[in-house]
Amino acid sequence: MNPVIYMDNNATTRVDPEVFQEMAPYFTDYYGNPSSMHTFGGMVGRKISQAREQVAALINAAPEEIIFTSCGTESDSTAIRAALASSPDKKHIITTRVEHPAIKNLCEHFEKTGYRVSWVPVDRAGRLDMDFLLDRLTEDTAVVSVMWANNETGVLFPMDRIAQAAAERGAVFHTDAVQAVGKLPVDVKVTAVNMLSLSGHKIHAPKGIGALYVKKGTKFFPFLIGGHQERGRRGGTENTASIIGLGKAAEMARTNLTRDTARIRSLRDKLENGILENIPHALLNGDKENRLPNTVNISFEYIEGEAILLMMDQMGICASSGSACTSGSLEPSHVLRAMGVPFTAAHGSIRFSLSIYNTEEEIDFVLEKLPPIIDRLRQMSPFWKGGSCKAQ
Amino acid sequence: MNPVIYMDNNATTRVDPEVFQEMAPYFTDYYGNPSSMHTFGGMVGRKISQAREQVAALINAAPEEIIFTSCGTESDSTAIRAALASSPDKKHIITTRVEHPAIKNLCEHFEKTGYRVSWVPVDRAGRLDMDFLLDRLTEDTAVVSVMWANNETGVLFPMDRIAQAAAERGAVFHTDAVQAVGKLPVDVKVTAVNMLSLSGHKIHAPKGIGALYVKKGTKFFPFLIGGHQERGRRGGTENTASIIGLGKAAEMARTNLTRDTARIRSLRDKLENGILENIPHALLNGDKENRLPNTVNISFEYIEGEAILLMMDQMGICASSGSACTSGSLEPSHVLRAMGVPFTAAHGSIRFSLSIYNTEEEIDFVLEKLPPIIDRLRQMSPFWKGGSCKAQ
Repeated sequence: MNPVIYMDNNATTRVDPEVFQEMAPYFTDYYGNPSSMHTFGGMVGRKISQAREQVAALINAAPEEIIFTSCGTESDSTAIRAALASSPDKKHIITTRVEHPAIKNLCEHFEKTGYRVSWVPVDRAGRLDMDFLLDRLTEDTAVVSVMWANNETGVLFPMDRIAQAAAERGAVFHTDAVQAVGKLPVDVKVTAVNMLSLSGHKIHAPKGIGALYVKKGTKFFPFLIGGHQERGRRGGTENTASIIGLGKAAEMARTNLTRDTARIRSLRDKLENGILENIPHALLNGDKENRLPNTVNISFEYIEGEAILLMMDQMGICASSGSACTSGSLEPSHVLRAMGVPFTAAHGSIRFSLSIYNTEEEIDFVLEKLPPIIDRLRQMSPFWKGGSCKAQ
Repeated sequence: MNPVIYMDNNATTRVDPEVFQEMAPYFTDYYGNPSSMHTFGGMVGRKISQAREQVAALINAAPEEIIFTSCGTESDSTAIRAALASSPDKKHIITTRVEHPAIKNLCEHFEKTGYRVSWVPVDRAGRLDMDFLLDRLTEDTAVVSVMWANNETGVLFPMDRIAQAAAERGAVFHTDAVQAVGKLPVDVKVTAVNMLSLSGHKIHAPKGIGALYVKKGTKFFPFLIGGHQERGRRGGTENTASIIGLGKAAEMARTNLTRDTARIRSLRDKLENGILENIPHALLNGDKENRLPNTVNISFEYIEGEAILLMMDQMGICASSGSACTSGSLEPSHVLRAMGVPFTAAHGSIRFSLSIYNTEEEIDFVLEKLPPIIDRLRQMSPFWKGGSCKAQ
């Protein structure tokens, strides 16, 4: 068994040892600057070109449509700002109530600086209100930004329908696909997004590297202005080792997607069914069908998610109570609140997110340890009394 | 001898093996998200705190004054944009004609969007025209951004005088110190800058990591809006391994600065004197005294820098003809042009930039190989005839 039982892969993933092997020589041995004229730098440049091809292949894009960035958040910022700069007269943004802070906080920023933002609601299963979206989408809409898959519940959004509607109204369509890429097939030739964000550390490449797909013909303005790197679209010396790592991880994700997904889904289903069958007052959050294969989000009523996490932590089980990017806040998840999950249930929600490294043994371990944890916490809860809620 | 003779350390440096050792476990073993609630993530968070202390110590700042970024370019963009956002009524920027593209291209961008930019000239030795700067500095100046040391010539700028003048006029003073930090003592308690950019890959940490010092009390607005990371000052999951590497590199730079600088300066002086004494029509670019200890920039009249680089490259010698961030352009260096270096000399300029990894043996090798290269190229040059210039 692994030293920890890591079921927090939507927060971040282990760098695959093969990815690390590929990167390692580019720190101390092949450390040249790819922009340098000498052979020593040029060889790094060629390796970056290969990585660009690998990342492009994962989403069926052309290599020149890929811009390397420092993370998903930078990709998101670059996309939204480029879309707004492309249509300075359009002052309307459409996004959802359940985006990652990288989009949510950015759009709130634009709301304070003269933009109108339509926040598309979701239903109790986390499904997007498409009527609301289509109703708000007009010629004045500069950009529609909707995540491909929700990071907390794994719920998938109807990319194709949104892409078509945005195109009809002349709006740029961006998707934050950091949770989708590598977990399900993403093909930008099939799904006509203009821009798509992806992140290395969600697919077993390191933290600190991301990419933005910009469809050929989509107007672009750089966010990070500086040197000529990335063909003038993103200044700053290339993060060579991590770019090479991202390339390798993309290649592995593409090659193994079908096999890995089936295995991960089966482990996830076993975990999910085991919890729901054995623990009373445990509710699945999010659409059971239309969901990432690795994610399960469950509310344990009448107790605190943080307390569950701490007790699991003592047994070496790593999970989360929401996005790592919003942790530290005592507020329940904005995603679950948008879904209308009652306060007491939202507070007691846990996200398990699996990867290729999880094993059946680990699932069995969690299924053995979790019920007594929940039971013990409920015995201590002022809201719980013998299987029903005192507060009712 | 090293497999290549790498004298292009102002472009980028080798990751120190000790730095790499420190980073390595954070890819495949301790890969948790520092924002996660579990112990596995929290331990990474504590290591990042240590790195923040190490980086702060290198410039005598407080840890909470350090924001990790993805590179020097991002630090520069963050600083300038924060300064402008702090004083929305002030529409004037002061910078120099010899900045790195990260500042130069950014200020040109602001020039097109309603800002007035004063570009401070330099003299033939690359020294700043302080009268020009002081004359332009008014209450309307939002920010003064002057690099600590020039990347192409190594010339140092009078930080203390500029800091004092900016403070008197209520302007924010930012310095791009990526070439200075780790090569000479930088103490923000002595030199009163408001913001200072530094970059990992110039000090034997990896590419793709940088930091911005923001003096306590200086107004700040985030550039990368997203999650709560860096205390809300820079969104995006932390580039954990590289941050840890930057911390280690900063600690090593601080510990070894005096010893390393003396050794590097002596190698640089030997290289410089050897070239100037043995090759006719070779001219030193930049102030001989007031200069980084590792950098020498020499013009070889009547020939092309690119040709020299290619012939050196065949012998495994890596140097550059200007900034790696502007390479690919056939224009001669904007730095040398700003200094008034004649066109024929600017075109034939080479920058050697040394590090702790260079050896006396390597210097001897270059001093042996370079004169015949220059001689051979001059024999082929239409402008050269037996030691004098045909074109005169």
